[in-house]
Amino acid sequence: MAFENINNCTGDSRFFKKSTPIALEQIVKTSKVEFVPSKIKSEKNLKLTGIAPLQSAKQNEVSFLDNKRYIDLLSKTKAGLIIVSPAFSDKVPSHSHALITSNPYLEWARIASLFYPKTLANPGIHSTAFIDSSAQIDENVEIQEFVVIKANVKIGKGSIIGSHTVIEQNVEIGENCRIGSHVSLSYAILGNRVTLFSGVRIGQDGFGFAVGDEGFFSVPQIGRVILDDDVEIGSNSTIDRGSVKDTYIGAGSRIDNLVQIGHNVQMGKCCIVVAQAGISGSTQLEDYVTIAAQAGLIGHIRIGKHAKIGAQCGVMSDIEAKSEVIGSPAMPFKEFFRNIAFLRRLVKSSHKSKN
Amino acid sequence: MAFENINNCTGDSRFFKKSTPIALEQIVKTSKVEFVPSKIKSEKNLKLTGIAPLQSAKQNEVSFLDNKRYIDLLSKTKAGLIIVSPAFSDKVPSHSHALITSNPYLEWARIASLFYPKTLANPGIHSTAFIDSSAQIDENVEIQEFVVIKANVKIGKGSIIGSHTVIEQNVEIGENCRIGSHVSLSYAILGNRVTLFSGVRIGQDGFGFAVGDEGFFSVPQIGRVILDDDVEIGSNSTIDRGSVKDTYIGAGSRIDNLVQIGHNVQMGKCCIVVAQAGISGSTQLEDYVTIAAQAGLIGHIRIGKHAKIGAQCGVMSDIEAKSEVIGSPAMPFKEFFRNIAFLRRLVKSSHKSKN
Amino acid sequence: MAFENINNCTGDSRFFKKSTPIALEQIVKTSKVEFVPSKIKSEKNLKLTGIAPLQSAKQNEVSFLDNKRYIDLLSKTKAGLIIVSPAFSDKVPSHSHALITSNPYLEWARIASLFYPKTLANPGIHSTAFIDSSAQIDENVEIQEFVVIKANVKIGKGSIIGSHTVIEQNVEIGENCRIGSHVSLSYAILGNRVTLFSGVRIGQDGFGFAVGDEGFFSVPQIGRVILDDDVEIGSNSTIDRGSVKDTYIGAGSRIDNLVQIGHNVQMGKCCIVVAQAGISGSTQLEDYVTIAAQAGLIGHIRIGKHAKIGAQCGVMSDIEAKSEVIGSPAMPFKEFFRNIAFLRRLVKSSHKSKN
Repeated sequence: MAFENINNCTGDSRFFKKSTPIALEQIVKTSKVEFVPSKIKSEKNLKLTGIAPLQSAKQNEVSFLDNKRYIDLLSKTKAGLIIVSPAFSDKVPSHSHALITSNPYLEWARIASLFYPKTLANPGIHSTAFIDSSAQIDENVEIQEFVVIKANVKIGKGSIIGSHTVIEQNVEIGENCRIGSHVSLSYAILGNRVTLFSGVRIGQDGFGFAVGDEGFFSVPQIGRVILDDDVEIGSNSTIDRGSVKDTYIGAGSRIDNLVQIGHNVQMGKCCIVVAQAGISGSTQLEDYVTIAAQAGLIGHIRIGKHAKIGAQCGVMSDIEAKSEVIGSPAMPFKEFFRNIAFLRRLVKSSHKSKN
Repeated sequence: MAFENINNCTGDSRFFKKSTPIALEQIVKTSKVEFVPSKIKSEKNLKLTGIAPLQSAKQNEVSFLDNKRYIDLLSKTKAGLIIVSPAFSDKVPSHSHALITSNPYLEWARIASLFYPKTLANPGIHSTAFIDSSAQIDENVEIQEFVVIKANVKIGKGSIIGSHTVIEQNVEIGENCRIGSHVSLSYAILGNRVTLFSGVRIGQDGFGFAVGDEGFFSVPQIGRVILDDDVEIGSNSTIDRGSVKDTYIGAGSRIDNLVQIGHNVQMGKCCIVVAQAGISGSTQLEDYVTIAAQAGLIGHIRIGKHAKIGAQCGVMSDIEAKSEVIGSPAMPFKEFFRNIAFLRRLVKSSHKSKN
Repeated sequence: MAFENINNCTGDSRFFKKSTPIALEQIVKTSKVEFVPSKIKSEKNLKLTGIAPLQSAKQNEVSFLDNKRYIDLLSKTKAGLIIVSPAFSDKVPSHSHALITSNPYLEWARIASLFYPKTLANPGIHSTAFIDSSAQIDENVEIQEFVVIKANVKIGKGSIIGSHTVIEQNVEIGENCRIGSHVSLSYAILGNRVTLFSGVRIGQDGFGFAVGDEGFFSVPQIGRVILDDDVEIGSNSTIDRGSVKDTYIGAGSRIDNLVQIGHNVQMGKCCIVVAQAGISGSTQLEDYVTIAAQAGLIGHIRIGKHAKIGAQCGVMSDIEAKSEVIGSPAMPFKEFFRNIAFLRRLVKSSHKSKN
């Protein structure tokens, strides 16, 4: 098989439906950032057809720059509209229009979403799905193949339930949620616009048991899982239900793939948890906490607002608001890298002194 | 959406069916620990209606204390029955009855389970399930929606097979097992009372191949997976089948979510493996080994009885019985924390001496 | 339940169908390595019935040795045919025939596969599967229970699609692929002989979003996932589709269980990624890279040809071809172990000097 189009195929039209062309005027009108028209071209009637990287963008396409490493590409681009930060605004070619903003990536996300809008629910229940008669499903919900919906489940309008997903008794799902394929949902209440990717497991028993003489004895886990509005959970991640209170994920928080969230965890709003990180039972994250990939947090600790936990970090105690820690056990970023540099010098000089 | 009940809702009656009230007399009779009646109230006729934390328990509810941090709550609680260790028995309020035990959490687990007993199998095969005619399924088994059971599978009485689970040819499942939804089971033999949570993968090929000049060449994996009685495996965990012998998980062992167990691993009884840990091929765990979250063990090593492997530990060689190790590579707990403290002092003093 | 056959049962005939006996002559004829006949037995008419470890092999079975630890077993074995490296050829018992090769494990893999050949597709579509009428499925494809195949999917001859797998719109699968049960496949193009084990998630959105004042804003992910010929992906692993180019896994690469591959990752041919490792977005692996278990790579870096990344390694920058690194942050193997030994001595001597 030949894959000659590799690296060269963004927006394969079989997979990604692009909108019809959008007038520059329309894009500018809906933007909240500064517009600087081309010095030599009129914006009148310019129709933009899509998005592209600086190097391949055509004169009717939108591009952006937010990394100074790629500054050289800016002067050469043919893009009709470029999103840049104020620092680069004077480097925009004279044939290009520009949107100037301190957060070009955000504006890029907004415009890219105009060309590639999210698919809307295609209302209806697939003939192969099994729906309990007591379920309350809004008529504007899309239920795909072989979905199982058990007793007393509620699903709000605009939500999509992917093929082979199983929703156990009494689960409540808000409006405009997107549940992928092969998801298991139990003992859970979801807000609006919650996204669960394929293979997510929500609501299973936490890892709670007493140690007896003759083995382990399970403790009933009688809390739920609450996913607040706009939460997203990545593929194959697992969120256990609470034992003594609810496991709670705050509004807007984003959790990546293969993440483990233990029972009774409380997460504030707009937290980020990157792939393969794990949070042990009863730990609390305040708002805007970031946990990088493969980091691990022990149970019963509290992470302050805006704290950043580095990749592979092992957190064994409370972390103050706004601090940035890394290492296992966790220490401030500065200390971690200073220790490493120090040890390296020490070993080197000891080695030299022997020779 | 408003989630005003967050953190405040244990035992949501929609999700958790509670037993009818239980007479104090009945609870005491089935207990193996010391009972100390209230100094001012008769236990006659007291009916207990449920369990609750010390701070919210009512006079007909059971509570417990096993952490001295919460000792202040003990004197203020209204709980009708409190489980405590001998050290706190004199702090039990006079209006409360008490059960005195050196392992309050175990007694708590037992009593909580009286109020929230495990759901029993609701025998029957759902109309949407696909069962091969050669399968031998006890009539007292519950088979849920869209389950697939292939040729010659055997399932013992009282077992529950969750929606969308696939059981491949010749797999044997004992009595009173609980298999969650979306489980894949192949080349496996399960004892009695085995629990597999949603998304568990059992019996796929181990990661075994020879390296040739023109790529990799798979080695046939012709061992099975044996899960002994009372084993529990957490959501989305993966256990590969053996290549040259069986992969074996000993009776009563508990494995958390997202754990990887390689081919030919042999695990003793009552081991604990916490979330996201991984055990490489052919490694052996003796009985009562604990492996904390995100730890990794290389292949072909042996971990002695009662050893404890710390979180994120990287184990590259045999570990003696009863030892406690942490760090990557693994070292005794003491050494690990001594090294860290030492390095910190060293860097600090070096920094000072420069100033 | 009694598991008395544990550790002692390889090739359980219920699970593993063995070929009929194979003539020694036939095995030798198809081998590319040196054959040394027994000094006392004629190879004429010897029929080999299977494979076994040295200690239990019978005179009509094949065995192999590639670890000098087990050299003592060689002189005692009854095996009719033994695969060994040149170094051990003079220790082969006189009643055994031998195949002499510098890569005994590869020859073992080849011969073991003669006795336990891969199951071929049993063509046909199970009556419970749901196939969109626009899908183009070769007639020599096996589709198992409750499979979902959506619009415009293409599947080449000889491929097997396991129970409960969901293949989303426009996905293309080559010839002789083996897709396990419960797999989610979207936005993907697969070459020939690709193997996906149970629970694999391919093609979901990458973890890409802009940070705005009122929360996160998703960036459309408009790349695909390309899995080249002979790629294998382990159970419950997740591969996100590209955002600005395709996520690409090179021919022959093998990925173990519970591995995370971020968007836009580019992996060369014959790479190995062991269980629970993670590769962040836009990172590039050249050919023949090995990444051991639980290692993590940050995004936007490049790993050179034949580089080896150790277990639990944290890679934060480019790695040169052929280098071997370990530790978090990554450093050369030598440096890592030298640092550890140095620190240990230092702490020890400091401790002594205090006493």
